[in-house]
Formats: sequence, structure tokens, C-alpha cells
Amino acid sequence: MKDSPEYLQKRAFFDSLLTIYGRKPVLEALEDFSLPVHKLHLADSNRRDQVITRIEQLALERQIEVAHHDRKSLSRISRNARQDQGVALDLAPPLYGSASAFLHDAASAGKNYELLALDGITNPQNLGMIIRSACAGGIDGIILPRKGCAQIDPLVIKASTGTLFKTRLLRCGDLAPTLAQFRERGARVYGLSSHARETLASIGTGKPTVFVLGNETHGVSKSAAEQCSDSLRIPMHNDVESLNVAVTAALICFRHQLG
Amino acid sequence: MKDSPEYLQKRAFFDSLLTIYGRKPVLEALEDFSLPVHKLHLADSNRRDQVITRIEQLALERQIEVAHHDRKSLSRISRNARQDQGVALDLAPPLYGSASAFLHDAASAGKNYELLALDGITNPQNLGMIIRSACAGGIDGIILPRKGCAQIDPLVIKASTGTLFKTRLLRCGDLAPTLAQFRERGARVYGLSSHARETLASIGTGKPTVFVLGNETHGVSKSAAEQCSDSLRIPMHNDVESLNVAVTAALICFRHQLG
Repeated sequence: MKDSPEYLQKRAFFDSLLTIYGRKPVLEALEDFSLPVHKLHLADSNRRDQVITRIEQLALERQIEVAHHDRKSLSRISRNARQDQGVALDLAPPLYGSASAFLHDAASAGKNYELLALDGITNPQNLGMIIRSACAGGIDGIILPRKGCAQIDPLVIKASTGTLFKTRLLRCGDLAPTLAQFRERGARVYGLSSHARETLASIGTGKPTVFVLGNETHGVSKSAAEQCSDSLRIPMHNDVESLNVAVTAALICFRHQLG
Repeated sequence: MKDSPEYLQKRAFFDSLLTIYGRKPVLEALEDFSLPVHKLHLADSNRRDQVITRIEQLALERQIEVAHHDRKSLSRISRNARQDQGVALDLAPPLYGSASAFLHDAASAGKNYELLALDGITNPQNLGMIIRSACAGGIDGIILPRKGCAQIDPLVIKASTGTLFKTRLLRCGDLAPTLAQFRERGARVYGLSSHARETLASIGTGKPTVFVLGNETHGVSKSAAEQCSDSLRIPMHNDVESLNVAVTAALICFRHQLG
């Protein structure tokens, strides 16, 4: 039953898990003892090499449950047969959760916040760089939809250079309805667009704010733009039309520190 | 004779030329009629395809000198046999010149300026992104040494997304002696370093300033650091150790617009 308390509890638990894959990312996560791990998944077909041996040692040492699968079942867990290298790991990172749970808590507590929301960011390098800049810039979190964006893969983890688990990542399915929820509960939702009238520097602080970053080629999608309360631009010289999306993210996150 | 007026004049002329290569970059440069072109170089071995035909048409239409070479001579011109695709183009972009000539003019005129100086930026993607952000942020120029940095190749041109010829690029051989010259003629030369005491936001404006950006893994080199008058950091949250160098460049270039 989809609405039973057991189902909802189970679902909330699985929503709080982040499954990563690939030998190097999994090894590095296991080596970080501060990171809560739910379960390690290994393919039966794995050749025993130094990395696999080290991964198994760490799992034993940390008393982590290990599940063995055939190659096909493992790829259903990683959802990326080409890049999983026969290894996947379910993590429960403390800053990883659902966008709606964050909104519920923040709105109930009357808390102020600033978030980035990613709309069609498909380049893993960009996603990793955005996470890195957001973490360093100290923004409160990143809304990362399951649909239309790059997902947390080994390239993203590499580009985030160790910041992935120090950054609040808020998951949702589609972005547009999530933006609508934030707006309905009092957040200003700004789409970044080079055609906007208002500038980033002109908006005040002190109000919950979501900055929507669109796809580099196509900008903010129609469905997401419809849920924005307004749009913003970053003034540019020399008739430049757009900035790299990771650069835009950094300018938003660091703007309080540079003034 | 290395010091004859003829030699110096000839050398100044060749210093003002930027040689690009690869079929797509050359075609796009020829299609921009505002861009002064010195000479087109073609390898005899080129198969005649649509792009080559269009390149030859544009050269004829624009009355550009065409030189034909064997494959080996062409690669001596492009200095990149693997990526030149048998095509090279000598451009004379109006904003392209030598760092020492810029310094001479600016110091003589008592002009204020802000420049980026690149020290060991070897990733073409980063170089292209830095050019794009610098152009959009309106900084006065980028010092790009011939030694130790990525050079203007097709990947850089692609990552700069049409901003390459709208950005003042100041060339030099080694960076360190050039930084010394700027310092001696009154510029503040700041090395960016996460270990610095002073922050980017703390320095005033109104004085000629050079910001030295170092290699992502190793930071500013010893030889360049020795020529810096001071070092600067960008304050970061969550114990993040460093930012992507293109992001750092953007924060420097845009800091006046975000306050």
C-alpha cells in the first residue's frame, strides 16, 4: 500500500540514501570514517585487485553490510553499468535529503535561507564545480532534481574535489513543482537570465531565496521559468551573452563576501 | 643583427600576430570580417572538403594572402601537428599585444588598470573559461606567458565562447620577470593563495593591480611568488581548500559589480 506508514517510512529512508559507484569514489568514501554507510554492493564478476581487496577490508573493519550480485543486478543498483566497475555503495550523508523536507522544516521554523536550484545542468564537470563553489561560498543548499540533470557520478565526485559530502543536496523529482512549493511557502524564486531587468546586486537579503540556474545552451526551461517569481541577470561587459553556469553559481554564492 | 631597428620592428610586428589553427576556429575567424587577418596557411596534403572550400572562398573574398606548405612546414607554423588539421591563420587582433608594451603605455600615461596574470594554467578548458569571465567581468587584460601555460588552441577558443578577440591578451615569455617589471613601475602584484592573510575584499581600488593566478594543483610558482608584493585569499566556508581557478578569476573580475 502506497500510503501505509511502513511504506512512507521506508521511502523516506531510501530517499535519504545516496548510491555512488566506481572503485575510486567508493574507496574514498569508505576511507572517510565520518561518512555513514548503509550497504556495500559488489558484482560477482569482479576481479580481485588491490582496490577491491582494500574496499572489502574497510567494509569488514567498519562492519558494513556487503551484498553480492550478478553483474546485471549490480547495474540495476548503480543505474550506470558503463561506469560502476562492479562496485556501488549506499551512503547516508548527513547533508543529503529531500527538498520538500527541507522546505517543511525551514518554513515551520521561519528560517531564512538561500538555495541554488539546478534546471537541466547536464554536464558532470559543471555540476561538480557548482557543488564545490556552493560549498566554499557557504550557500545553504542545492536543489538537484532527479530529472533533467546530471546525477552524482564519478566525474561529478571528482570535479567536486572533496566537497560533495560537505554540501547540502536537496533532491526532488521534477524541478517545476518543487519551485512552486517553495514559492507558495514564501520564498522568492529567481531565474537567472541574461535578458532580465533586475540585477543580482539589486536584490536585498533577509528573505528566503531560490536561484534557478538553467541549461548552458537553452537557459532556464519554460516549466521552471513559469514557477519563478522574477528573473535576474549579472551585468556583463563587452556584449558577452552568458557566463559558464558554474561561474554564475560562484558569483551568487560569494556575493556577500566580495562587497 | 638582433638590435637593428629593422629587426626590432619586424619582431614587434610578429609579436602582434596570433596564429590559430584547426578548421573550425580558422573558418569562424575568417567569417568575422571585423578581425584583421595577416596570412592563411594551408597544407598541400589537405583533402578538399566543404570547410576547406569555404576557407579558400573567404580568403579570396577578403583578399588575404594564402601560403601553401608541405605538412611538416605547416606544423612548424601551427606548432601543433596533432590539432592543426592542415590549416593555420595569422591574425592581428586589435586587443592582442605584449605585456611590456602595455606596461610602457599605461605607466607613461599614469593610467590605472587591473590585470590577471596566469602562472602555470595548463588546462585549456580553464584558460578558455578565464578569458570568458575576464571579458564579461570587464577586467583590463590577461597576462598570458608563452612559457608554462596552455596556449590558444582550438579547445581554448571553444571554451572562450566567442570572447577571445574581445579580451586584451598580453603576452610575455616568462611570467616572473614581467611581474617584476610591473611591480617596479608601481603596480601592486598580488598572488592568490588560500594561505594568505589579506582578503580580496580588503584591498582598495584606484591603484594599478595585477592578480596572479597559479596552477590548480601547485598554486602560484616560487619564481612568480617572489615577484609578488603580497598575497590575497578569498574567504571560504566549510574548510574548502581551493576554488577552481576560473571561478577565482571570475570572483576577481566581477567583484565591483556584486557589492
